[in-house]
Amino acid sequence: MSDRYLRGVEILQRLHGHPLEKVTNAVAEIAPDFARMTIEFPFGDLYSRDAACLRTREIAAVSALAAIGAHPQLRVHIEAARSAGCTREELIEILMQVSIYAGFPAALNALAACHDLLATQPRAQAAE
Amino acid sequence: MSDRYLRGVEILQRLHGHPLEKVTNAVAEIAPDFARMTIEFPFGDLYSRDAACLRTREIAAVSALAAIGAHPQLRVHIEAARSAGCTREELIEILMQVSIYAGFPAALNALAACHDLLATQPRAQAAE
Amino acid sequence: MSDRYLRGVEILQRLHGHPLEKVTNAVAEIAPDFARMTIEFPFGDLYSRDAACLRTREIAAVSALAAIGAHPQLRVHIEAARSAGCTREELIEILMQVSIYAGFPAALNALAACHDLLATQPRAQAAE
Amino acid sequence: MSDRYLRGVEILQRLHGHPLEKVTNAVAEIAPDFARMTIEFPFGDLYSRDAACLRTREIAAVSALAAIGAHPQLRVHIEAARSAGCTREELIEILMQVSIYAGFPAALNALAACHDLLATQPRAQAAE
Amino acid sequence: MSDRYLRGVEILQRLHGHPLEKVTNAVAEIAPDFARMTIEFPFGDLYSRDAACLRTREIAAVSALAAIGAHPQLRVHIEAARSAGCTREELIEILMQVSIYAGFPAALNALAACHDLLATQPRAQAAE
Amino acid sequence: MSDRYLRGVEILQRLHGHPLEKVTNAVAEIAPDFARMTIEFPFGDLYSRDAACLRTREIAAVSALAAIGAHPQLRVHIEAARSAGCTREELIEILMQVSIYAGFPAALNALAACHDLLATQPRAQAAE
Repeated sequence: MSDRYLRGVEILQRLHGHPLEKVTNAVAEIAPDFARMTIEFPFGDLYSRDAACLRTREIAAVSALAAIGAHPQLRVHIEAARSAGCTREELIEILMQVSIYAGFPAALNALAACHDLLATQPRAQAAE
Repeated sequence: MSDRYLRGVEILQRLHGHPLEKVTNAVAEIAPDFARMTIEFPFGDLYSRDAACLRTREIAAVSALAAIGAHPQLRVHIEAARSAGCTREELIEILMQVSIYAGFPAALNALAACHDLLATQPRAQAAE
Repeated sequence: MSDRYLRGVEILQRLHGHPLEKVTNAVAEIAPDFARMTIEFPFGDLYSRDAACLRTREIAAVSALAAIGAHPQLRVHIEAARSAGCTREELIEILMQVSIYAGFPAALNALAACHDLLATQPRAQAAE
Repeated sequence: MSDRYLRGVEILQRLHGHPLEKVTNAVAEIAPDFARMTIEFPFGDLYSRDAACLRTREIAAVSALAAIGAHPQLRVHIEAARSAGCTREELIEILMQVSIYAGFPAALNALAACHDLLATQPRAQAAE
Repeated sequence: MSDRYLRGVEILQRLHGHPLEKVTNAVAEIAPDFARMTIEFPFGDLYSRDAACLRTREIAAVSALAAIGAHPQLRVHIEAARSAGCTREELIEILMQVSIYAGFPAALNALAACHDLLATQPRAQAAE
Repeated sequence: MSDRYLRGVEILQRLHGHPLEKVTNAVAEIAPDFARMTIEFPFGDLYSRDAACLRTREIAAVSALAAIGAHPQLRVHIEAARSAGCTREELIEILMQVSIYAGFPAALNALAACHDLLATQPRAQAAE
């Protein structure tokens, strides 16, 4: 295990308490090297740098992922953003703001995809 | 309720007989202000202008939404386009034409996503 | 020359008075078969069908091309849309409406890219 | 049935042993002409040309489809790529490489969407 | 002039000291109502809300705009982000991080498009 | 300099005879660490693996980059693909094929952007 991998795992544990998302787990079965690289480059190489704090990085992650419609990863980073100090209200506001840059469907579909993570009360996830 | 909101609701009722789509309903639970803005800006500000008729606007909506793959909103606007005077054949043709601009997968996936709305006979929605 | 090609050229001449755009001319030098296919499939196969009129097709083209940011082709279809009966005001309105689906930058950059074609007075094209 | 259609069907049978994908079947019900065009242009016009072999074409198809997130078509072309001589390892590697051009979510979601097709052992498809 | 417009102008002046970008100026000539809406909805309706501070909003804007490749707007928001308190180093880091979500070309082209705004020393803008 | 960097530089020299593209040079001035990472991850980590040969990797690169419209990087990989054994005719064919997946504008604009690199005779680059 490379230093880069260990640095990445450490950051993921601070953000999630668990190192891998569901998609990455499925991927790890057929492409274990890529599951490792998904920790090494994003988290080991970039997130570990001091030039931006984790809160700043998670705001950027949530906004970019909602803009491009990558919902499985958006859900992971909504949770990470909460760990990094973003409030529920802030995250909803950031997803609303994505309507400016990527259109109303991008914002609406992102909010719907993260409905259960952003609701005040736990309940069944909204049907898309 | 702003004038913009009331103008938007009036247009939605002409197009749908009902004001909100399923995605927007889910969104309204966690971001009620954004559900309101989704009526105010698109429908209250833009659709209410005379420079283009509702039929023209719905052709534009269907084509753009299919091109970018926003299927929940595409389904809403396929219904709105029917209310605004587009025929089933025209809408199928517009989705076919999207293959030119955004590729065959965009056109095929849009047609499949709206299969039940565009079939001559009601039946169970096609599995994607 | 196939029937499909001849049908496509006839439609392009109705829309433009000239058969090929600048990008297509550059392409024709290195990929003459693709320049031919660009007439055969979009215009010979699709545009020649009766299920949608040219005005409807050009509204759909302008909206999809603005949404995906294909500016050279958008410019060609803004001209074609004028030939097919769309007014300057309608086309501006359709580009404004794209902000709903694909965001404000898509709409602003499309309007800027077609500034000279949509201005009431001819003048030098706006710098992007 | 046009020569182009027959040429396209012949290629599809070499690649799949069966001519149509599930999405295309759903589409064929509401837009039979488009199902025909989906064979005529991509397979009859382009794939039948000698300038690139089927293996080269399927590598290009898999990479482009993963980059734009067209998962139903990606699955079809993963199978076609196997028929054209690509190994399971090569295809996993190409999907990994898509992370460079279109980001880690595009690569991860493509790998997850094709999990069952790329696993060494048959099993239930991974939940996304 | 609506309250929404005045609220939007006030925020733009805090961020830029000047209310309109070059693209918006070109747009204002052919679509003055859309130039107004570009201030009313994004800045008057969304940016004026308290749920997220301007620094958070500009981090989100820069990340989304780089991810979708909207370079004219990205340049405007790089400047706004500086006014809202982001450092040059942070903004470079956010653009680097976009490589994770949208690929290396998105990050490289965004950094190149903003080269002059992010250099420590003023110089001629890098040729793309 | 890491082993990953040195592996990446070695591959780039095999493909280009020179290690960095123009965009990357501009980026290196403001984000030298990212210029390094652009060699380490894509070339040091991925391209150096045996699971796919350089010819296969470059076909995948050209197809994905044309599909997403990343023209500066597409130009670099058209040159790399030639070094890896692809012919001019094959590369033109791959760009034509992109029309299937990402639409005619993506294919036409990619061919136009690489016109000078794909022409049989050197001449001034085609104006886009």
